[in-house]
Amino acid sequence: MDLNEIILPIKEQIKLFDAEFKSAIRSNIGLVDIIARYILRQKGKKIRPILVLLSAKASGGINKSTYRAAALVELLHTATLIHDDVVDNADTRRGLASINAAWKNKIAVLMGDYLLSRGLLLSLLNGEFEFLKVSSVAVKRMSEGELLQIQKSRQLDMDEETYFKIISDKTASLISTCCELGAVSATKDEGIVAHLRNFGEYLGMAFQIRDDVLDYEGKKATLGKPIGGDIRERKVTLPLIYAFENAPKQTGKSVLRLLKNGKRGSRIDEVIKFAETYGGIGKAHEKAEDFILRARDELNDIENSDAKESLLKLTEFVVDRVN
Amino acid sequence: MDLNEIILPIKEQIKLFDAEFKSAIRSNIGLVDIIARYILRQKGKKIRPILVLLSAKASGGINKSTYRAAALVELLHTATLIHDDVVDNADTRRGLASINAAWKNKIAVLMGDYLLSRGLLLSLLNGEFEFLKVSSVAVKRMSEGELLQIQKSRQLDMDEETYFKIISDKTASLISTCCELGAVSATKDEGIVAHLRNFGEYLGMAFQIRDDVLDYEGKKATLGKPIGGDIRERKVTLPLIYAFENAPKQTGKSVLRLLKNGKRGSRIDEVIKFAETYGGIGKAHEKAEDFILRARDELNDIENSDAKESLLKLTEFVVDRVN
Repeated sequence: MDLNEIILPIKEQIKLFDAEFKSAIRSNIGLVDIIARYILRQKGKKIRPILVLLSAKASGGINKSTYRAAALVELLHTATLIHDDVVDNADTRRGLASINAAWKNKIAVLMGDYLLSRGLLLSLLNGEFEFLKVSSVAVKRMSEGELLQIQKSRQLDMDEETYFKIISDKTASLISTCCELGAVSATKDEGIVAHLRNFGEYLGMAFQIRDDVLDYEGKKATLGKPIGGDIRERKVTLPLIYAFENAPKQTGKSVLRLLKNGKRGSRIDEVIKFAETYGGIGKAHEKAEDFILRARDELNDIENSDAKESLLKLTEFVVDRVN
Repeated sequence: MDLNEIILPIKEQIKLFDAEFKSAIRSNIGLVDIIARYILRQKGKKIRPILVLLSAKASGGINKSTYRAAALVELLHTATLIHDDVVDNADTRRGLASINAAWKNKIAVLMGDYLLSRGLLLSLLNGEFEFLKVSSVAVKRMSEGELLQIQKSRQLDMDEETYFKIISDKTASLISTCCELGAVSATKDEGIVAHLRNFGEYLGMAFQIRDDVLDYEGKKATLGKPIGGDIRERKVTLPLIYAFENAPKQTGKSVLRLLKNGKRGSRIDEVIKFAETYGGIGKAHEKAEDFILRARDELNDIENSDAKESLLKLTEFVVDRVN
């Protein structure tokens, strides 16, 4: 599934979004503007603004406030990425040096705060309070989800329910926000808004499960990031949770000990093997497919259109991607 | 001037603020709540909520939305401090270990983002959009001011006008926001709101100039932070700007070279001596007093009350403080 095909119904609108985002990010303070222009060069896939635009088009039509919603979510997402790179000491982002690597941590943290405030002001100054409410809840949930994951990875104490809460908060909340804001910008029909919100929630769940499975599937994902990152950080994700459920108690216990105390190299290989052996990877795959089906179901009551078709194709893109 | 005396007119109301802040910061996620309770133990002087409460009382009376405004500014301020400690690698804050020292950078950045979103949600969910607008502009200005200061300290290129813009953005904006929000919560009279906003702006300017002068006056400020921190970071602040204006061109040039290339120890001593010799410290003092007079003037048209009296006393507190 090719992203270029998915975005066909909004090809011209993406250009208008680019202009909106550019004007929302730039500044008359020299250093801020230099970094802003650098961020514009770090081209991402723009999945979130694409979701806003497609959701709006599928539920009534794109208008001026849709572009502001798209710029808002991209500003929040960019701010989060910059803060993430600080905390992870990441050197690169989207093929260029990260902001913290190019300009130091201090500037990166401030730049993240700056982008957050620009996003909020964009909605505030246009009186789009519903956008603000939805997106502020998402910002809160994203930080809470990350913090809950850190807490659980210290305790190595995780079950399916907690895992779903974490990924719903840290990932699905913003994806869901994108679809909800797109719909809110286009229609007053609360039923449609709810369907798009749920579509985004389930799509986000599938997206994160796929991401977590990819951490166990290095060979297939040849272009992706190195495998085993989550295991290194002692994050217990879905493949491992399901393997623990299936494995004999004693085997599970010894893997837990390995996660806690094992040497890095052997730890990663053995944990991956354990997740494979006890069907954790396969079952996690199935769960991602489940969420995709639930996402698609949410669109049943939405009128057919090229934009709806693209949203459905996006669900395939999410599970098929290899990085 | 004693802070305990200043807060007498709002002694009971500070307790109600404490309760509001506590409920705004706590979480049902274990780790988040542990850190929230830790933050509650790091007691600061609460200057910002005090300003909100006094401004409201001086302009009509404290009500429920005043407490939310006070909690909002304290949440934003706390978030900023936590992010500052990450970027400065600070080990302590208010006599306790900083969040980054106690829990690592990753958690501190996320906790800052969490507190920002809690502040915004507090206003959003109560429909207090004016609070949001004023405080989002302040968050934007705070990050822009810090970034402009970093830009200028790289270029060692600073004049009085740029310096005033920087401290207005990075410090006075939030102090001004406190006074404005207090007034907005209490009255619809735009004249009163403007007076309180300006009072806060001038008070904030004086506060930051005093802070920057303290960096040159270690002996007097026996309890404060070590002197010369700004010089070490090549921040050109007001004492130095004025000294450059008064000094012979050649002497100024050699101090600039020293700032750029000199060894730390000698650099700090010589720069302080230079600022003293050419009257920079004295003139910066006078400028702080000027701003205090302008702040006090703004209150001329405000009806007399114990709260107004306390705001006037606060102006003395700001210039008399030694740390």
